[in-house]
Amino acid sequence: MAMNILVTLDKNYLPPLRTMMQSLFLNNPGETFEIYMVHTDIPENDVALLAKFCAHHGGALTAIAAKGETFADAPVFRHYTKAMYYRLLANKLLPNSVDKILYLDPDILVINPVRPLYDLDIGDFLYAGAIHTGITSGVTDFINKLRLGNEDAEGYYNSGVLLMNMERQRREIDSEEIFDFMEKHKDELVLPDQDVMNALYGVKTMSVDDSLYNYDARYYGSYLLTSGGEKDLDWVMHNTVFLHFCGSEKPWKKSANNRFASLYKHYMNLTARTLEVLSR
Amino acid sequence: MAMNILVTLDKNYLPPLRTMMQSLFLNNPGETFEIYMVHTDIPENDVALLAKFCAHHGGALTAIAAKGETFADAPVFRHYTKAMYYRLLANKLLPNSVDKILYLDPDILVINPVRPLYDLDIGDFLYAGAIHTGITSGVTDFINKLRLGNEDAEGYYNSGVLLMNMERQRREIDSEEIFDFMEKHKDELVLPDQDVMNALYGVKTMSVDDSLYNYDARYYGSYLLTSGGEKDLDWVMHNTVFLHFCGSEKPWKKSANNRFASLYKHYMNLTARTLEVLSR
Repeated sequence: MAMNILVTLDKNYLPPLRTMMQSLFLNNPGETFEIYMVHTDIPENDVALLAKFCAHHGGALTAIAAKGETFADAPVFRHYTKAMYYRLLANKLLPNSVDKILYLDPDILVINPVRPLYDLDIGDFLYAGAIHTGITSGVTDFINKLRLGNEDAEGYYNSGVLLMNMERQRREIDSEEIFDFMEKHKDELVLPDQDVMNALYGVKTMSVDDSLYNYDARYYGSYLLTSGGEKDLDWVMHNTVFLHFCGSEKPWKKSANNRFASLYKHYMNLTARTLEVLSR
Repeated sequence: MAMNILVTLDKNYLPPLRTMMQSLFLNNPGETFEIYMVHTDIPENDVALLAKFCAHHGGALTAIAAKGETFADAPVFRHYTKAMYYRLLANKLLPNSVDKILYLDPDILVINPVRPLYDLDIGDFLYAGAIHTGITSGVTDFINKLRLGNEDAEGYYNSGVLLMNMERQRREIDSEEIFDFMEKHKDELVLPDQDVMNALYGVKTMSVDDSLYNYDARYYGSYLLTSGGEKDLDWVMHNTVFLHFCGSEKPWKKSANNRFASLYKHYMNLTARTLEVLSR
């Protein structure tokens, strides 16, 4: 059974998206993927090359171009665009045939098979996602304030990897509720879409292990320490599925210097070589 | 045209050999390889699995088991075995049909296509290999002494990556000369096979760029500095073909902590996953 993958982006993130996809394909031999890409303004020839890239690896790409009329009545503020709604409101954008989909940020490297997460039974939850344990307690408090004392969620979820129960989202996620919340809290939101997802749906999110499914690549030492030394580099390479390069020190930058930079840059190079062959 | 690859080993190096081969296959799509493995005491089922592993990646394995009678009159000393002659005397072990072969140490990771080195015209040289620039001048002097004042070689070659001109080696490399040299200098040799290769054949070796073809993974800072900042991590990932994990800090160890350890361990894991599928 093919797995559905959702990505949403603007064109600045196209190169890392391709690297993420290269790592997804390479580490999931024998699997096929249906990739749904919701985007604004990605040029047609880039979409065509990405489709070719997916097909080369046995995947299929469906590009969904969001236009001005998509979410026409959604509030925008500061430097954010309506793209911040693409992930939250995937239920309005994806075909009804999609009953489950795995959302992935473009600043992720996939280093092991995703099947165990994809096949997770999330029952009646809207999402399955990971809390970045130990480093976000201040943010959790902030979000709990936004939620006016609703402290039932396990913690503050990182929205970079989300398994989405589309059937239930179609029934329960309401664009008006999201737009109202954004409007009301726009001055307080730090990461608007992630904050809103947590505030409105944190209690309806199933928690998965971040060291497996949303490993914050900045905090190797912290994972190692809190696991009593178990989660060393061998463990990570053998077990972690998604390395997430959170924060501003992106691994595609020249200055990247973390312990996963060589691995990431190798995948960048594999991607460039593949694209070179496909562009001939 | 298939490329010939030579590996020589005992069974302790079988796991890194497999990782090296996984990286060779993965980074050379569209190429086919004829792998010649000269070994002692690798069990039959391990050889069979390795052959399956090669076939899975479109390669072919020829295992050449060296027995007691191979090099019966070769001197051995200290903790070394006759295995130290397998690379030096490949001309006595390989089929005559092999006119050119690329020798690779098992503690290497291949991260880019090997075709440019393989297709190098080495003319009348016996070998093409790389000098580990800047870090071996003391050793060079030592070897020059062994060679009794013959200072015509460009430097001290690392024998971990050697493109071998088998046609010429069959004409010029004489086992008696090697055995005599070993016998005479056995108390002075540090790395016997590499020292002998340098002492006897250093002047008949063509020098290639170590930062491309035999990058010493311990010395990232040194390559960066001596290149005036050009050879940063992006450069290495894009250009270097062979990362060589010289010295005792091997990347497959738990303690491995160099900047290429995550990359190496990822390949270990890819290899383990492939073997798991093939062993089912």
